[in-house]
Amino acid sequence: MPRPRIMVINPNSNHVVTAGLAEALKRLSFADGPEIVCETLTEGPYGIESQADAESVVMPLRRTVAGDNESAAFVIACYSDPGLHVCREATTRPVLGIAECGVLTALTRAETFGVIAIAQRSIRRHMRYLRQMGLMDRLAGERPLDMSVAETASGEGTLAKMITVGRALKEEDGAGAVVMGCAGMARHRKPLEDALGIPVIDPTQAAVTMALGAVQFGAS
Amino acid sequence: MPRPRIMVINPNSNHVVTAGLAEALKRLSFADGPEIVCETLTEGPYGIESQADAESVVMPLRRTVAGDNESAAFVIACYSDPGLHVCREATTRPVLGIAECGVLTALTRAETFGVIAIAQRSIRRHMRYLRQMGLMDRLAGERPLDMSVAETASGEGTLAKMITVGRALKEEDGAGAVVMGCAGMARHRKPLEDALGIPVIDPTQAAVTMALGAVQFGAS
Amino acid sequence: MPRPRIMVINPNSNHVVTAGLAEALKRLSFADGPEIVCETLTEGPYGIESQADAESVVMPLRRTVAGDNESAAFVIACYSDPGLHVCREATTRPVLGIAECGVLTALTRAETFGVIAIAQRSIRRHMRYLRQMGLMDRLAGERPLDMSVAETASGEGTLAKMITVGRALKEEDGAGAVVMGCAGMARHRKPLEDALGIPVIDPTQAAVTMALGAVQFGAS
Amino acid sequence: MPRPRIMVINPNSNHVVTAGLAEALKRLSFADGPEIVCETLTEGPYGIESQADAESVVMPLRRTVAGDNESAAFVIACYSDPGLHVCREATTRPVLGIAECGVLTALTRAETFGVIAIAQRSIRRHMRYLRQMGLMDRLAGERPLDMSVAETASGEGTLAKMITVGRALKEEDGAGAVVMGCAGMARHRKPLEDALGIPVIDPTQAAVTMALGAVQFGAS
Amino acid sequence: MPRPRIMVINPNSNHVVTAGLAEALKRLSFADGPEIVCETLTEGPYGIESQADAESVVMPLRRTVAGDNESAAFVIACYSDPGLHVCREATTRPVLGIAECGVLTALTRAETFGVIAIAQRSIRRHMRYLRQMGLMDRLAGERPLDMSVAETASGEGTLAKMITVGRALKEEDGAGAVVMGCAGMARHRKPLEDALGIPVIDPTQAAVTMALGAVQFGAS
Amino acid sequence: MPRPRIMVINPNSNHVVTAGLAEALKRLSFADGPEIVCETLTEGPYGIESQADAESVVMPLRRTVAGDNESAAFVIACYSDPGLHVCREATTRPVLGIAECGVLTALTRAETFGVIAIAQRSIRRHMRYLRQMGLMDRLAGERPLDMSVAETASGEGTLAKMITVGRALKEEDGAGAVVMGCAGMARHRKPLEDALGIPVIDPTQAAVTMALGAVQFGAS
Repeated sequence: MPRPRIMVINPNSNHVVTAGLAEALKRLSFADGPEIVCETLTEGPYGIESQADAESVVMPLRRTVAGDNESAAFVIACYSDPGLHVCREATTRPVLGIAECGVLTALTRAETFGVIAIAQRSIRRHMRYLRQMGLMDRLAGERPLDMSVAETASGEGTLAKMITVGRALKEEDGAGAVVMGCAGMARHRKPLEDALGIPVIDPTQAAVTMALGAVQFGAS
Repeated sequence: MPRPRIMVINPNSNHVVTAGLAEALKRLSFADGPEIVCETLTEGPYGIESQADAESVVMPLRRTVAGDNESAAFVIACYSDPGLHVCREATTRPVLGIAECGVLTALTRAETFGVIAIAQRSIRRHMRYLRQMGLMDRLAGERPLDMSVAETASGEGTLAKMITVGRALKEEDGAGAVVMGCAGMARHRKPLEDALGIPVIDPTQAAVTMALGAVQFGAS
Repeated sequence: MPRPRIMVINPNSNHVVTAGLAEALKRLSFADGPEIVCETLTEGPYGIESQADAESVVMPLRRTVAGDNESAAFVIACYSDPGLHVCREATTRPVLGIAECGVLTALTRAETFGVIAIAQRSIRRHMRYLRQMGLMDRLAGERPLDMSVAETASGEGTLAKMITVGRALKEEDGAGAVVMGCAGMARHRKPLEDALGIPVIDPTQAAVTMALGAVQFGAS
Repeated sequence: MPRPRIMVINPNSNHVVTAGLAEALKRLSFADGPEIVCETLTEGPYGIESQADAESVVMPLRRTVAGDNESAAFVIACYSDPGLHVCREATTRPVLGIAECGVLTALTRAETFGVIAIAQRSIRRHMRYLRQMGLMDRLAGERPLDMSVAETASGEGTLAKMITVGRALKEEDGAGAVVMGCAGMARHRKPLEDALGIPVIDPTQAAVTMALGAVQFGAS
Repeated sequence: MPRPRIMVINPNSNHVVTAGLAEALKRLSFADGPEIVCETLTEGPYGIESQADAESVVMPLRRTVAGDNESAAFVIACYSDPGLHVCREATTRPVLGIAECGVLTALTRAETFGVIAIAQRSIRRHMRYLRQMGLMDRLAGERPLDMSVAETASGEGTLAKMITVGRALKEEDGAGAVVMGCAGMARHRKPLEDALGIPVIDPTQAAVTMALGAVQFGAS
Repeated sequence: MPRPRIMVINPNSNHVVTAGLAEALKRLSFADGPEIVCETLTEGPYGIESQADAESVVMPLRRTVAGDNESAAFVIACYSDPGLHVCREATTRPVLGIAECGVLTALTRAETFGVIAIAQRSIRRHMRYLRQMGLMDRLAGERPLDMSVAETASGEGTLAKMITVGRALKEEDGAGAVVMGCAGMARHRKPLEDALGIPVIDPTQAAVTMALGAVQFGAS
């Protein structure tokens, strides 16, 4: 019997990001557990920064999910959770969004959470989404790195900036845990957590963890 | 290097329940993943039904956690999450409650959730806890089985009753997913899900899944 | 000087619906006021019933708005407000959604509002949207007609059914005003209001009214 | 057939304010639309600054509404919406309050809104009212000009101060739109909007716009 | 030194109600405690049933409070709390409303509360007030007796009806305590509590209790 | 007939604190009113500062309440309200918590309240409790004294620090009333209130006031 598959879709077309996701998820890939496959949405933009970027991948994501009869669960690996509900309409198999799972996982570790966003202009969209999820009562704050996705991916100073922003979330806003509001920051999770002294959640790791649970317990 | 250990504590002293937990968690026990150990809190009451039952295990749970230097994460396997915050005070390792994780996992699968409680009198305590967690906006409803914990454990008619209550949660209250509000119902999860046609969450499986993620990603 | 134009976009490709919108908006077309133009999104599906229908028009709507340098304001005439935020990103001119404006207008007339949905399965999407708007505290309830969009457009019994559902919203749920949760029901507004004895809001009329205010007062 | 009439009542006895309202509403007065009449409540205080000022006009407003059989709709033009509910009890015709309509109109233009209050001591009353309306989740903040109504009416520096306060609402509090929290500031709307770069709502214009929609669509 | 005085103002002009209040408060009149004086607002309507009735007493209440330099605290004994904020503006001494105190006292006794209203049409006003107070999360429900104030005062069947309505609040709505939503029902409190088996709060007794605390602890 | 007794339980074992409570409550001890008795929970820790301190007294408090057949009402005099719900399960007589009563009493005096906490680390626990009570909408803020319980009890500078913190709550956070978040600060209430110019609530005085009302009106 083949291992069931968790399909992690990177909705941007940057293969380096997809490779980073695969790396970040290795520790959930058990020999006798589900296979975790990370794929790139080739139709996606090179990065998802604007509302238009996010909306542009919605129907392609739906087609990807609807056309995949083999995966046992899907994870949409973009912190705006584009297409989450339309993909859920397309299948009865679990479809998980990393923003939703990241925030909900943070709530299992602390009273309040903060979010590190890449850019200021994403924050309004994230706030709208948190209101939609009904989770504003636990939000301590969200603060931007004010870097481009590209800069955060490559830049030397990213971790240092994340620590500065994370400290502000913890000390000024009262966050008890921090969610990294982007799919491509996993390698900074541990050093950031060590620097802050509170749990730091990588949202893709959070979502794939929950997908693994859903698959192992036979979600129908 | 030994496998890290997830310690699942059954706060009641009924070893049959503990054995049931171990059985329910087998599918998360990967050869190259964390070891999952289920233990019985021998000082606990035989079942946790009243507020006094729940409070009576708080300090023993704290002592158990504080005295365990080896486990990488803890799961308190009672749907009232007794002692969650005091255990978190006692360690920097993750301590997860099954009620919290069960509800948050349901939120990754549907807009709204319903809860099947064992007994009517637990519902007030659960509502208080949902208010504390700030999650009332997503609650469709909670309905009791009106059975004793003992009856649900052994009784023939438990599944049939759960289906009746689950259908009311889905059809009358509008629940998009159902949380089984007890640690000992896991064996009914799949048939209940099949009967209802919406996700059904076993809270212990949900919590141990999240503990596994926390351990694998090196929660500090 | 030409009259400023309010562009009302019907995102489905049913020209009969567009013609109905134009008819329903005549009383806002003043000789010395803005011109109100109703257009059909030819790329749209014939009706918007599913989440996929709604998402499929998002990027086409954005292109329509971005490509129109002449209109002073835009109204998206579908009760799911598809593409609202992405269209706002594309222009500094006002872009209004009929669901948002319909509900907010109802709040100017009564303490609580109810919504008549066409179909049961839309209600979950509407609830999510009301949560996102932060307006759940004033919602009395939403109930479906359980008719297809086509049936409501043509059917004889539509008004009678709307009265039945509206009475349930008023008498059982406590609604003080009712929003018709569809773009194509305007002709039933007045008889429904007369039958119920409480304000009934047609959402397209509400949105175009607000667009007219924004245009007249020189929204920039 | 005579044009239907929208009666805008200035509850303070300052005729200069009433004249300013008439001026501010001219662009909603269409040849083939409703007549917009602004009247002064002669029993009112010269300005409404305290809670007592606001309460003192409640019963006079009710008498005015109850005694007017000709107007098709009423607008109470004071940012505390005095007497709104008692006037609604007195007639089945629409009675609109400018605070309510101003805030709800702001919500059609942005995720969050800020309010510029004349005086610090009004803010508590406004907060109470926003809680009553159930709209706190969208409030970014409210800040005072710390000027008297008289100063704002005549003073040279009013616009400059409004820009300073508006910028704080936008940049520090995160407001996406600003409501001018007073009936007499309409002439500053456009320059303030130009300076801030986000929508600025004059509440009287917002309320009369909604009254016009209610009248044109035959509110009963 | 004279005993400090708590002034309880019955805002309707029915002296029988005032006498009933005095009777209901006897057990808070301690020899060495504050004097409790109940007075009738002679300008008030004979009963307060409509919004207009409630508003009509606001300015007279303010004059009463402002003109009384001797009382140490004031209680407004009408379940709509008319004039509460304007009276607080008129004095630095405590001014308490019976609706506010009744509900807040219920919250000290149970998770959730229900309200018995005299008439259906009051409920909308009470809901608006509960939203204003930010207390909706604890409300189980409000149900009317559907009797006039006069009927409840004199009628034989009042207690029986209250028990029926109270049972519905407890059993169907889940109320853990019941507030009697009227100033004149105190004599039914004990038998109703005995019949229901959950705390029943008379709001005037609750408010005068809190006034007594404020006076004894030297509120300034 | 003996006077009914209100039992005030100090859950820490510091008899000086208990004596202070008795002193602070003298003005509620009327010759013809209930007897107010303050007792020390000898099993309690010397001070309640941690979550473990709070939890450790829960079951002893329950035993105390369950074993006392003579008191008419109970007050748990620790600002974390330890054991409140389990004590309520143990008796049908009123059991009141000082945090709950302190906050609810503040709400009878002002729109918003602030809390002065002893230590920073208590604030998270208090926030969780306020969310549980559903009262966050009225919270202006909570700020710590950053002193030990011992320091606040004895230290010279306590009042000065309370004034500093209280002013920040009033002026920066907008609190309209202040709750002293500790059982042992009553002697500072009046001077603090005089310095701040807004109501200051001692929570034990608030709770015993409400207990007195419950007892006098024959709570069953």
